[in-house]
Amino acid sequence: MALLGTQGSRGLSHPRVDRHAGVPAGTTSFYFRTRKALLLAIGNRITELDVADLSLMAELGHDEAGGYSGTLGLAQLVMLSGTEPYLTRTRARFEIVLSARQDPELDETFRNYGIRFYALARDVIAQWYDDPDVPDSVIEERAVTVLTFISGVMTSFVNGYSVVSDAAHLDRLIRQILQSSDLA
Amino acid sequence: MALLGTQGSRGLSHPRVDRHAGVPAGTTSFYFRTRKALLLAIGNRITELDVADLSLMAELGHDEAGGYSGTLGLAQLVMLSGTEPYLTRTRARFEIVLSARQDPELDETFRNYGIRFYALARDVIAQWYDDPDVPDSVIEERAVTVLTFISGVMTSFVNGYSVVSDAAHLDRLIRQILQSSDLA
Repeated sequence: MALLGTQGSRGLSHPRVDRHAGVPAGTTSFYFRTRKALLLAIGNRITELDVADLSLMAELGHDEAGGYSGTLGLAQLVMLSGTEPYLTRTRARFEIVLSARQDPELDETFRNYGIRFYALARDVIAQWYDDPDVPDSVIEERAVTVLTFISGVMTSFVNGYSVVSDAAHLDRLIRQILQSSDLA
Repeated sequence: MALLGTQGSRGLSHPRVDRHAGVPAGTTSFYFRTRKALLLAIGNRITELDVADLSLMAELGHDEAGGYSGTLGLAQLVMLSGTEPYLTRTRARFEIVLSARQDPELDETFRNYGIRFYALARDVIAQWYDDPDVPDSVIEERAVTVLTFISGVMTSFVNGYSVVSDAAHLDRLIRQILQSSDLA
């Protein structure tokens, strides 16, 4: 994950993982025979870490004080993904999703990650409305818009800059999107 | 551009460009001696094509009927970037921006592309408001939000799916973001 996140896809190889991890030459090849097996293992590890972070946020709920809760919690989690040590994971995720396009099995694995993330973030967003008059279709669409916006924020981190100054700023932008009214 | 967009960064090499272009072995190395020179040339070509498309849109203005104008024009241009032959260019752009992180000169070149794109899209968005009462700071922030959202939409294209169904849908989402009210 560290190699992929700092050196990119071309910087990842079995011998380099051996050297980076300080294990005897051939160890990585023994456990992950192919490049695909190596990428799958890295992808699964990234997903495991991401889901743990997101689940923590979901458990805290939106009424708890402090911690990761509500849209500010989502904003804080996104901002964390732009600072080390999480930024390397964010970059590795971008690299691996691009690499996955070359392999249907990898592609499906990482697509499942996206579906999980979406479901969790959608719940946070639905909680935010807390209004039975807002139709599900509106919540769905706003959730997609917010998550797409967040994907763009993470892209800015990966590319070495940030379009938002801090979590409070990001939270404000997210809530602006959530409360925008429908056009006739 | 085609190799980078279809095979990814690891699929790009001087001999492969020779074969893909059907030119004698060594031709690509003769014109672009290093990998960096090759990436710069590809990046410049992508920028040239992008700027031509965006300038066309800007020239048409926001009152013209048909063609690329206003927020619908922006939406149409974004949707085009998700379909071939433009999708390969979009994917190549993502690959090259990730590769650029390894080299400061490449990084600056592609950062300049981003600044140009931002300035142009900001003008389209400012035209949309067409209201002297809206402060510049609000327009700036909305422009950043819309462009970040568009970056997320393009990320979905690159990853093999689409978060929006068509240009009219994307246009509606963009205008929802533009008209969202400020929180107190």
